[in-house]
Amino acid sequence: MKENRVYEIDDRKEVLFHNNVDFCIGTGRMGLALQQAYQDQLRMVQDEIGFRHIRGHGLFSDDMAIYQEYEDASGVKRAEYNFTYLDMVMDSYRKCGLKPFLELGFMPDKMASGKQTIFYWKGNVTPPKDYQAWCDLVCATLRHLMERYGEEEVLTWPIEVWNEPNLPGFWKDADMEEYFKLFHRTFDAIKALNVRFRVGGPAICGVEDELWIREFLNYCRKEKLMPDFITRHHYTTEFPKPEGHYGYAALSDAEQGFDNLRSTRDIIDSFEEYRGLEIHITEFNTSYIPNCPLHDTNQNAAYIAQQLSRLGDVNESYSYWTFGDIFEEQGVPFTPFHGGFGLVANGCIPKPTFWTFRFYKELCGKCVHKSDDMVIVSTENGGYQGIAWNAAGKRQDRELQFDLVFPAVKGKEYSLIKKTVDEDTCNPLRMWHDMGEPASLDEKQKKLLQDCARPFISGNRLAASEEKLSVSLTVKEFGVVYFELQPIKAENDRGFDYNRAVLN
Amino acid sequence: MKENRVYEIDDRKEVLFHNNVDFCIGTGRMGLALQQAYQDQLRMVQDEIGFRHIRGHGLFSDDMAIYQEYEDASGVKRAEYNFTYLDMVMDSYRKCGLKPFLELGFMPDKMASGKQTIFYWKGNVTPPKDYQAWCDLVCATLRHLMERYGEEEVLTWPIEVWNEPNLPGFWKDADMEEYFKLFHRTFDAIKALNVRFRVGGPAICGVEDELWIREFLNYCRKEKLMPDFITRHHYTTEFPKPEGHYGYAALSDAEQGFDNLRSTRDIIDSFEEYRGLEIHITEFNTSYIPNCPLHDTNQNAAYIAQQLSRLGDVNESYSYWTFGDIFEEQGVPFTPFHGGFGLVANGCIPKPTFWTFRFYKELCGKCVHKSDDMVIVSTENGGYQGIAWNAAGKRQDRELQFDLVFPAVKGKEYSLIKKTVDEDTCNPLRMWHDMGEPASLDEKQKKLLQDCARPFISGNRLAASEEKLSVSLTVKEFGVVYFELQPIKAENDRGFDYNRAVLN
Amino acid sequence: MKENRVYEIDDRKEVLFHNNVDFCIGTGRMGLALQQAYQDQLRMVQDEIGFRHIRGHGLFSDDMAIYQEYEDASGVKRAEYNFTYLDMVMDSYRKCGLKPFLELGFMPDKMASGKQTIFYWKGNVTPPKDYQAWCDLVCATLRHLMERYGEEEVLTWPIEVWNEPNLPGFWKDADMEEYFKLFHRTFDAIKALNVRFRVGGPAICGVEDELWIREFLNYCRKEKLMPDFITRHHYTTEFPKPEGHYGYAALSDAEQGFDNLRSTRDIIDSFEEYRGLEIHITEFNTSYIPNCPLHDTNQNAAYIAQQLSRLGDVNESYSYWTFGDIFEEQGVPFTPFHGGFGLVANGCIPKPTFWTFRFYKELCGKCVHKSDDMVIVSTENGGYQGIAWNAAGKRQDRELQFDLVFPAVKGKEYSLIKKTVDEDTCNPLRMWHDMGEPASLDEKQKKLLQDCARPFISGNRLAASEEKLSVSLTVKEFGVVYFELQPIKAENDRGFDYNRAVLN
Amino acid sequence: MKENRVYEIDDRKEVLFHNNVDFCIGTGRMGLALQQAYQDQLRMVQDEIGFRHIRGHGLFSDDMAIYQEYEDASGVKRAEYNFTYLDMVMDSYRKCGLKPFLELGFMPDKMASGKQTIFYWKGNVTPPKDYQAWCDLVCATLRHLMERYGEEEVLTWPIEVWNEPNLPGFWKDADMEEYFKLFHRTFDAIKALNVRFRVGGPAICGVEDELWIREFLNYCRKEKLMPDFITRHHYTTEFPKPEGHYGYAALSDAEQGFDNLRSTRDIIDSFEEYRGLEIHITEFNTSYIPNCPLHDTNQNAAYIAQQLSRLGDVNESYSYWTFGDIFEEQGVPFTPFHGGFGLVANGCIPKPTFWTFRFYKELCGKCVHKSDDMVIVSTENGGYQGIAWNAAGKRQDRELQFDLVFPAVKGKEYSLIKKTVDEDTCNPLRMWHDMGEPASLDEKQKKLLQDCARPFISGNRLAASEEKLSVSLTVKEFGVVYFELQPIKAENDRGFDYNRAVLN
Repeated sequence: MKENRVYEIDDRKEVLFHNNVDFCIGTGRMGLALQQAYQDQLRMVQDEIGFRHIRGHGLFSDDMAIYQEYEDASGVKRAEYNFTYLDMVMDSYRKCGLKPFLELGFMPDKMASGKQTIFYWKGNVTPPKDYQAWCDLVCATLRHLMERYGEEEVLTWPIEVWNEPNLPGFWKDADMEEYFKLFHRTFDAIKALNVRFRVGGPAICGVEDELWIREFLNYCRKEKLMPDFITRHHYTTEFPKPEGHYGYAALSDAEQGFDNLRSTRDIIDSFEEYRGLEIHITEFNTSYIPNCPLHDTNQNAAYIAQQLSRLGDVNESYSYWTFGDIFEEQGVPFTPFHGGFGLVANGCIPKPTFWTFRFYKELCGKCVHKSDDMVIVSTENGGYQGIAWNAAGKRQDRELQFDLVFPAVKGKEYSLIKKTVDEDTCNPLRMWHDMGEPASLDEKQKKLLQDCARPFISGNRLAASEEKLSVSLTVKEFGVVYFELQPIKAENDRGFDYNRAVLN
Repeated sequence: MKENRVYEIDDRKEVLFHNNVDFCIGTGRMGLALQQAYQDQLRMVQDEIGFRHIRGHGLFSDDMAIYQEYEDASGVKRAEYNFTYLDMVMDSYRKCGLKPFLELGFMPDKMASGKQTIFYWKGNVTPPKDYQAWCDLVCATLRHLMERYGEEEVLTWPIEVWNEPNLPGFWKDADMEEYFKLFHRTFDAIKALNVRFRVGGPAICGVEDELWIREFLNYCRKEKLMPDFITRHHYTTEFPKPEGHYGYAALSDAEQGFDNLRSTRDIIDSFEEYRGLEIHITEFNTSYIPNCPLHDTNQNAAYIAQQLSRLGDVNESYSYWTFGDIFEEQGVPFTPFHGGFGLVANGCIPKPTFWTFRFYKELCGKCVHKSDDMVIVSTENGGYQGIAWNAAGKRQDRELQFDLVFPAVKGKEYSLIKKTVDEDTCNPLRMWHDMGEPASLDEKQKKLLQDCARPFISGNRLAASEEKLSVSLTVKEFGVVYFELQPIKAENDRGFDYNRAVLN
Repeated sequence: MKENRVYEIDDRKEVLFHNNVDFCIGTGRMGLALQQAYQDQLRMVQDEIGFRHIRGHGLFSDDMAIYQEYEDASGVKRAEYNFTYLDMVMDSYRKCGLKPFLELGFMPDKMASGKQTIFYWKGNVTPPKDYQAWCDLVCATLRHLMERYGEEEVLTWPIEVWNEPNLPGFWKDADMEEYFKLFHRTFDAIKALNVRFRVGGPAICGVEDELWIREFLNYCRKEKLMPDFITRHHYTTEFPKPEGHYGYAALSDAEQGFDNLRSTRDIIDSFEEYRGLEIHITEFNTSYIPNCPLHDTNQNAAYIAQQLSRLGDVNESYSYWTFGDIFEEQGVPFTPFHGGFGLVANGCIPKPTFWTFRFYKELCGKCVHKSDDMVIVSTENGGYQGIAWNAAGKRQDRELQFDLVFPAVKGKEYSLIKKTVDEDTCNPLRMWHDMGEPASLDEKQKKLLQDCARPFISGNRLAASEEKLSVSLTVKEFGVVYFELQPIKAENDRGFDYNRAVLN
Repeated sequence: MKENRVYEIDDRKEVLFHNNVDFCIGTGRMGLALQQAYQDQLRMVQDEIGFRHIRGHGLFSDDMAIYQEYEDASGVKRAEYNFTYLDMVMDSYRKCGLKPFLELGFMPDKMASGKQTIFYWKGNVTPPKDYQAWCDLVCATLRHLMERYGEEEVLTWPIEVWNEPNLPGFWKDADMEEYFKLFHRTFDAIKALNVRFRVGGPAICGVEDELWIREFLNYCRKEKLMPDFITRHHYTTEFPKPEGHYGYAALSDAEQGFDNLRSTRDIIDSFEEYRGLEIHITEFNTSYIPNCPLHDTNQNAAYIAQQLSRLGDVNESYSYWTFGDIFEEQGVPFTPFHGGFGLVANGCIPKPTFWTFRFYKELCGKCVHKSDDMVIVSTENGGYQGIAWNAAGKRQDRELQFDLVFPAVKGKEYSLIKKTVDEDTCNPLRMWHDMGEPASLDEKQKKLLQDCARPFISGNRLAASEEKLSVSLTVKEFGVVYFELQPIKAENDRGFDYNRAVLN
């Protein structure tokens, strides 16, 4: 099936498109940042895409070893803080050009009021035995960071209190009142340290989210708290069906998700005090489980392409969960392609969705077109960049054919570069399947998978015979195509004739 | 136009195919090896292809600064040798895993009997004023190398006396008798140093080549010399037509070239003493000029694919001229794609022909098929590797369709990997043209050209329903396709279902 | 206080010195090998010293995630093995040129018969619930390794069963009979897989060691087992005195330790069947606690220098515990210099003992002198290498003055190179103290500590006026000095006069 | 002989010290920047010292291949410009964080009015045949650079017209009038391109320098030219005595040199129009020949230490000639230590003078002391940095003992770090001599020389018992000592006791 789209570009108008694709990226728990493979994947992501912040769980979990206790000479229990691993992690982020988006949690075992944990790696999700000890820990950590990295620098790191307290798995009994207490105490302690810190919450996911947002703001208003921003999460699949190590989930309707985000915006704006308060989506992805094969597909890449065109509409930022597949929430994956959240599969293999981010990072200019399957910006030098996608929610064998007309300078030559990521050109999951789904990759296999996981690049040279230029693009099902149309200064070395070179 | 080929593979027979693709590679003059860009290109070639020897001109030319003279206290002129640059060059080769194939030449100005030079970089091509001084220089150099790199190591470096003395541009008056004298004196001096050195000549190109080979061997027989090998060159285009900085040359009929090589073999074998003596083609390429745009095309890659399938038939080795485009024989090139000899264009951009070599380097097994457009080997583990090419001498819009049948194990699954280099998938020259033929590349342009200059990779998973397996390949005009058919141990992680992942 | 030593070297005799310094090195638990900082330190150690094997605990501990269980469709519990992390660790070792010396342990929680654990990282030290499950795990792991790295390669990796079963902390109740059972079952399972695997034990430390060795061999004899080697540990300090995060331990008399090793040898040799059986000291160091400041001192370096001169006397190999300070047995260290076992402190700062190993690695030749404070070998080219140390057990302000006389070629010139590591020249612990003992190092501080942690190098040029050459060396307290005396071919460039250059 | 210095530091006063040590560094001819060894040395210099500009000869010499001519269809000779190598060189500088200080010269052969050349590498030193062609070349080059690197960036690159025209070797007949013409035409052409370019001259060395400066300014005044700065050179040895490949030169009295610089300043200031015009010393060193063994000595390092303390007194900048020893003015050096100008010897071995620059680069603060053998600055955090040197013009066996008293905070602890470069601690020339002066270094020898060529570092921890702190320093003959006195926040981990660790 083939569908046609005809778009004529008018570069005088500007279309709403808040492209903040590189603001933040998610990560497996902080302690994993000590790992070499994690760092290799992160460096690759930063080299090609380059995010500005990174956010993940587990800052205060025991593998980071920050919170320690001992008995002093008189037998009194005292706290001491160990920042050895914290320094290593933060140094590594900074070396990659990243600032943390600090998420405060989970509870150190020794400080916890209970034994409930979450995940394979056992993050304790109970409130502190002693809120003062918690606030001391938070402040000691921030003070240490300011000492090491400079006060002004650390003040630019946003701080979020806890993660998904609206789920009983993440916060004991999903106890709303207790969370508000945690928020209040933490907020006050940080602001007392330096009022310029930016602190937000409640970091909820899409379960009773409207209730939580509303109650949170009611609480803040009552307590005269002015959070610096609101945070929430955004996942867009149906419930997954489990099978062995995996869960299979169908994509939900994208519009439904955008409506949900719109509601959050509206609720906030309905509070006079909080109207226009920044919303940060501190996690988003299609499926919310780290073993959903969908994440590794081209379909995921195309669906996310649409998300990225609109997530900035009512939100300040949106952080994809996660950059890589060094991740242990459900245990250690058995194979490189195991449906992890990452943009990169283990073995440093970019997944199709990696390129969706890369393409959005390229866009730099004024938006002149945005539709359900394409976004185009005009660039300073008189050219255009765009992304087209074919994101049918289900497989339907649909090919999209775009006929674009751009304003152009008559007589000028233009270079058209296309980068195509679709099931035929950039599909490492399929190559891995073709190789027999090996669990252990040798170096040659890794290289082959990396090599086949790159966009297909093609070019063209067009002359504008009038004041406009027509460009055609075909996007196969689940494909994402980046293109760049740039006026060129055609040079020609003395005696060089391309046609003579190739048309002999 | 479409042409079909049907090949049924019988893996019990063995076909003649002496695949010595990695034995030796050519280089611009030795002094250029001091350059960083040269080394960058060489490292890239070695990382991906990995040759064993390297051969080029200019070992004794003045920019290498080896031969020096001074007056001693009593006013007598004396020689002294400076090995500073030689050490740097040899160290750099060895770091890349390369041994030199030493070419002795050209003449240091101070030792030369005349002023005639060749090339932009002015290599002196006249005989020595004093043959003893020449022999001293050769021996001092070899002694130094043995001291630095070990005698046993240096004895594995073949030595060739001079370059193309049958051309008056390379050897004053193409004086045959004088060359024989040079060879004789040099040969004797080296053998006196260590009889195990392997010394050969006469390094001729295809002008009066039969006469030269015959006379050279007559001379050797008369003088009772036993050269260790014979060397010659092999270029396969018509005379180039000059235009500005460039020369345009048409490919000559490949068979004509193979016949010429066969003649050399026959002449040698007609001398009883020299029957079966090794022949090394110490230079080959399509065109013999370093500014022939043909070198940068896909056509060149396909033509060379055929060459590589047959050059080993009567020759021990064949050295492509050259690995990279840091090369100054006609001056410094003005643009990255200037028709240089190299496998790599300036900016570290692999040309299509680069991949032809890479593909041949992959082949490792017994040859089971060789025809005008394909070579196939069987591998130890029950699989196959092959290369197909579409090397029409002139553009004729011909597509080749191969239908291959391989022996297989019934019920077994096979993985088929294809790497395609053709005008649509891997054509940096065209991309550069589409960009407007920029003379100065910025980093982004370089990256784009590098990224578009890689084979297109695709895969497939096939089950053998009987004792044979059918495989189809399409090769577009001037295309080269590498493929690998390997039996796989299909693994399957608990719960993983590829089809369920992608066919939702 | 100054003491003199006068040694005249006779290069015709050979002295017992089995220098196997690079055979094996210890490491923190296997799972830590996933960390970047661990790898950085390991690479540094391998670049400068270059060990051949590496041995550590925790192969089967839960952070390696190898052993997993699930219920099949019919509700039966089944084992499955996850080799994702194992591959990463082994790949990283091999990239550093290391083969593992496999220690089988500790017990996966799900397979364990009890809950007793050891260390901050909670290694389970109870016997398996089911010995067959244990053997299956061992064999599945070995089979996987052979598949990935090749059977011949993996057969060169020694295998040791468990660690220090003679301590109740490491093996429940230090139950000897249970250990013998573990050994027997494991030994049989591995040999059934491939009889060429080399399997040993009992990996004991110095507590009731003689009893254990004797009983182990009695058991083996009775059961007709032929272990491929015997393993034990070797630590040489008194009981440490605890204080805060640290323990302070005094060095014990070295001779006492050597006697202890001698006894082990004698016991083994008293069994006819096992006479001459290889002994591998799979751990040694001064103190056995990972928080003993002694490890970071020059005194440690000097003491170990003596150890290395004699540990090979009755043992095949001896593995220093450990290469680096990424180590968590007592928790995460608070500061870079915390008395860890490592040759390298966190921040990639070599400790003095690092150089002791580097110096021994240099020695390459026939031993011509060995005494309590010096070892000397003669080298192939007519020179000598030696190490001198000043290893007083306690500080006593003693300086050692060595007067050495070497055989020499009259009239020949010699180059003498000395590398000195003592409290004044190479003492990063002191520099760190002088800096104020900072817990968090910034980049500049790290660099300063690295820069000050290198041997002081000095040279001399000596002419032998007769058939002997006198050389003097001074070694300060706790100093270690490496020296090299080599005949030189003095060259002299035309016109160069060193004295004129510097004595103007 | 021992001499004492007693300095009491008063940190309220400020002493004149214009420390512009990192403004510019010299280089061998531009074409050498293509070489890998050149780049390796440059990277090392930039990593450790980090200059901001680089200046050398040969921008327009033929090996850079910029200026080319061809005949057009009608037989008319035309110019064309080749920027291939220029791009490579400039890219490499920028990758090292360097901007060029452009020196315009020498003359392309094809544009030259004569055949006179200078140096082994034959730079043509005659005026252009056609001044318009010269101006076209200059402008085409600048235009190209602006296009590639951005106009604003290139405008920050100073431009100097020619080199040492007051010497007949560098400018035919040292023809003053012709030089003024060259300056005028070039100046006008560049300013017409962009008036914001900064253009200066006359780049003279110390021969008839006063006459030249005066006449140059007279000419400029007459022609109403306002050069942006004045340039001159500064060398400080007597005439060298030649011997074989070398020249031996004695240092001249430093004060004489400073007086000479003062005169230039005075002459300029005597012109009302040019009073205060910036002076850039675009070359300085001790000896002006590239084969003077003095350059490789500690004496050179100490002498330069004094120079660096005062060269900024009347000059804006001063550029050491040169960063490295890839340099060919007298031919290719035969050995690594051949008395080259470089801070780094071939083989990437830092010479003592390298560290003098490194030390001055460290200084960052207000100057509180400057004398003939020491400079001290106070730093923001309440500490001090200083450099002391012992720069006797001739060897006199003098040791300097400094007794320094600093203001301090009573009760505070200070860390004192010293880095010592003297003949005993950091003297690679001597080590090379001790090794037998090998012309060809193997990797092990290179490593040894690099390792012995580093400052000796020592530390101390001092407590201020009153409002002042006494510090003693000893500087051996030809020594240079850097020190840093910094208040520390002494930390102490729970239970750690340094003295207990080392005083057992």
